[in-house]
Amino acid sequence: MIDAGLLPASGVTGEELADRARRLGLLLKQKDVPLAIVGHNPDLYYFTGSIQQGYALITQEGETVYLVRKDVDRARVESPLGRIEAFSRFREIKEAVKRLAGKVPAKLALTLDVIPAALYLRFKDLFQRCVLMDGSALVRSCRMIKSPFEVDRIRKGIEIYDETIRQMPRIVGAGMTEAEAEANLIHTMRRLGHPGMVRMRGWNQEGINGYLYAGESAAVPSFLDAPLGGVGLTPAIPIGGGHRKIERDIPLIFDASPGDGGYVSDQTRTAVIGTLSQDLTEAYRLTVEMIQRFEAEAAPGDAVGGWFSRLEKMADQAGFVEHFMGIGEKRARYIGHGIGLELNEWPVLGENLPWRLEPGMVLAVEPKMVFPGKGAVGLENDYLVTETGVTRLSVTGDGIVLLNGTGEA
Amino acid sequence: MIDAGLLPASGVTGEELADRARRLGLLLKQKDVPLAIVGHNPDLYYFTGSIQQGYALITQEGETVYLVRKDVDRARVESPLGRIEAFSRFREIKEAVKRLAGKVPAKLALTLDVIPAALYLRFKDLFQRCVLMDGSALVRSCRMIKSPFEVDRIRKGIEIYDETIRQMPRIVGAGMTEAEAEANLIHTMRRLGHPGMVRMRGWNQEGINGYLYAGESAAVPSFLDAPLGGVGLTPAIPIGGGHRKIERDIPLIFDASPGDGGYVSDQTRTAVIGTLSQDLTEAYRLTVEMIQRFEAEAAPGDAVGGWFSRLEKMADQAGFVEHFMGIGEKRARYIGHGIGLELNEWPVLGENLPWRLEPGMVLAVEPKMVFPGKGAVGLENDYLVTETGVTRLSVTGDGIVLLNGTGEA
Repeated sequence: MIDAGLLPASGVTGEELADRARRLGLLLKQKDVPLAIVGHNPDLYYFTGSIQQGYALITQEGETVYLVRKDVDRARVESPLGRIEAFSRFREIKEAVKRLAGKVPAKLALTLDVIPAALYLRFKDLFQRCVLMDGSALVRSCRMIKSPFEVDRIRKGIEIYDETIRQMPRIVGAGMTEAEAEANLIHTMRRLGHPGMVRMRGWNQEGINGYLYAGESAAVPSFLDAPLGGVGLTPAIPIGGGHRKIERDIPLIFDASPGDGGYVSDQTRTAVIGTLSQDLTEAYRLTVEMIQRFEAEAAPGDAVGGWFSRLEKMADQAGFVEHFMGIGEKRARYIGHGIGLELNEWPVLGENLPWRLEPGMVLAVEPKMVFPGKGAVGLENDYLVTETGVTRLSVTGDGIVLLNGTGEA
Repeated sequence: MIDAGLLPASGVTGEELADRARRLGLLLKQKDVPLAIVGHNPDLYYFTGSIQQGYALITQEGETVYLVRKDVDRARVESPLGRIEAFSRFREIKEAVKRLAGKVPAKLALTLDVIPAALYLRFKDLFQRCVLMDGSALVRSCRMIKSPFEVDRIRKGIEIYDETIRQMPRIVGAGMTEAEAEANLIHTMRRLGHPGMVRMRGWNQEGINGYLYAGESAAVPSFLDAPLGGVGLTPAIPIGGGHRKIERDIPLIFDASPGDGGYVSDQTRTAVIGTLSQDLTEAYRLTVEMIQRFEAEAAPGDAVGGWFSRLEKMADQAGFVEHFMGIGEKRARYIGHGIGLELNEWPVLGENLPWRLEPGMVLAVEPKMVFPGKGAVGLENDYLVTETGVTRLSVTGDGIVLLNGTGEA
């Protein structure tokens, strides 16, 4: 019914999906939950290779049924799963759970971090005798460890960022507004293959494809739990580039998340037309040293909080602690995070957090220094945790990107 | 502490916010709910003129307190509200409710359509003796009626679309992929002032800034409850333009939502390099007649379902009903929807829906015809419902956009 030749392929194999479901199944078993119902777009994609309107039902044994309301014909082309079933009414989910599990289980896992309350109440009404437990941590833990296929998708996004940095002198010029430069950079990333969507997990988390900040507007505190947010073009979208014009001798920050196959990278470079003042140059050098230290020393088993303290201590010893990851009390208490199908994946490399580095994690590490009235400097690279250390995925050099200021559309 | 000169202004006045809160207060009174807690980004912006991490508390009398966790200094610059209070711990929300309402009320309204289940459960735990009712319909009904200020924001988005259509022959050419052309069109809209974010309400609703479909890929059914979705570049982002190349004599659909100040327009034009076949040309002419009939006859008091049936009947009489708003059974059962801070606002102009047209509604009306193996044709315009009829906001002509095929980046 659907000409499969018209649809792009995911490249995800049935074997890879089986492995993902098996790993979720083990986590369900540990928590004594017989079955998970997954429907949040990136979670659904992770377990089915497809995002149609529907749910994946996954058992402790890793058996998966993909229930689809719309469009089931397209789901059958997109997903390598063997069991794809059509449904139309919400209550049919219960029948499908019964068919898969043999009965309605006493406990079900749902991702309560992202399912709206109204939908949760419908599930509660449908599964009246069940305990609906929060399976978010299980799904996020499962997704935290990447396969080689997933790492390759992220590497593709990293290449797009690298080529965009190469083109930056041609497309970012003096006199342009932040928003215009940002539009040019995003356009370049899209022409290089970035699909133009960046997903963030959680309520009110909104991602755009990339941010360009010029000078002092990078130092304005934002609603984001992040060192930088920008001022935006309107308080209705209070992030990203705004009306401020790009000038000589101020720091330009380009933080972007191009991707491939639904996966995103996350990298930042500092650029300048002309030169930066001595304090900003020193602060930038310090962020490079932080990155170098992470590259040289990070290893599986490291506590994430240890890395936050280590870098904070470096900032303190260099006299920059009040600028590290924000300003004074408003500083962010983390130095990196996982990336994958969402920009804000686990683990978070933050203070007092429970994770230890594990092989297969892919991390964006982002030491940044913020100076009120001047702007921000810093860089962000992506790493894969291996059996023995970390492999740098980023291919762009760590230096400040020098622009001649003549860039245009 | 924050240099207000760095932040863009919303243009929303304290009087306008007071009017919005007063109207929500009346709806709360009708439902006998003393207070609403609003936190979903676009709702928060509607009632505060600002999107920082926090909540707006609104009483039946329209008194509003903006509680802000991060960044309260920025909220004080952005919002014209008089009562802006800092908080840091979730439980302080209860104290703030007590201060505003005199006591903890027996009922509270929350927007359960968008609040995650985990957050709802925290509210339930905090307000143990309260009934937490779903206030989504109240907030959406309130937002459904636009002020002149809001209509002006949407008009700005409409101008951006119009100018982009004028530039289309220069930037969309034969041999380009859908995704490349889409990237060029979005870049043009951003250079004209579109902030680059389009919000959609509801779980798994993901918006991009605009879509370009070429020929048959427009006719592939998608997970969206909409006539067209596209194939995308990957099943992970199964909407928008894909790898298909633009050729002569096939219909090109450009559906986009540029905006201003957080508000979005929503318009579609059909374009072609060369000519369209006779059936597509006839189908297109029919969609123009549908639009003309809506413009001439629509008036306050009209049942939305009446407009769906009227246009469907026109399609039937012309022999095109199996192509109207989709293919066969997969046809969408609506012909338009409200627009504003979100792309999918109320009312929905659909079958068996309860609304009647009211002055102040802003509607996108989108008759579209889908032909398997060939693609889609149609158009979409924006209208303001007035006291006596509808005012057309769209300024672009209704004809097919003729391209010469030489367009480039």
